[in-house]
Amino acid sequence: MHKAFRIGGDIEIEKNGKLFLDKKRVELLRAIHSTGSILSASKKMNISYQMAWTYIKEINSISPLPVVIRQRGGANGGGASMTTYGLTLVRNFLMIESKHRDYIADLENDMKSCFF
Amino acid sequence: MHKAFRIGGDIEIEKNGKLFLDKKRVELLRAIHSTGSILSASKKMNISYQMAWTYIKEINSISPLPVVIRQRGGANGGGASMTTYGLTLVRNFLMIESKHRDYIADLENDMKSCFF
Repeated sequence: MHKAFRIGGDIEIEKNGKLFLDKKRVELLRAIHSTGSILSASKKMNISYQMAWTYIKEINSISPLPVVIRQRGGANGGGASMTTYGLTLVRNFLMIESKHRDYIADLENDMKSCFF
Repeated sequence: MHKAFRIGGDIEIEKNGKLFLDKKRVELLRAIHSTGSILSASKKMNISYQMAWTYIKEINSISPLPVVIRQRGGANGGGASMTTYGLTLVRNFLMIESKHRDYIADLENDMKSCFF
């Protein structure tokens, strides 16, 4: 019965009180990287193109360097790609998230002995 | 500029996918303990009595032992108090939360060297 208690918690990275990156935004960035298109990425995420584009604009405006670049024109109306800097951000976020997940697992183990 | 990036993240304790305790609920429990009344606690928290009572019912139903007990009757229509078990839960939650906060601060320091 005790083991059923779990600790949840997701990290988010913010700057001056504004959300920069969280699980969902990083998933969107990864989808843009794999599909090469904001539209395809938004479909993959089950969010509207408008919402995806709003997230991207927020990320780019908070970031000191561009994270996503749109290519206008071309056969399919222009795609989008992650910058090298953006890819580094995503990699770092995933690393931090993974460390945090390990720590939460440790806390959960501690909790088993202290909650009852 | 880089130092402006911060990591946020609150823990929550859940059981079988249902939320048991989080920052807000623990704040409510502490307010009940200090005021001896769900009504006073809800006012302190700026939430409705109904919402506070819903939280308490959920906490009590998920918990293996009662966390809050209502005393019916009396001059002010009956108060509420935390059980010894409930107080232990709150203490443990605050301890886990504090450890987690320290860990987030460590992650934040790591991040300063890896985000740029």
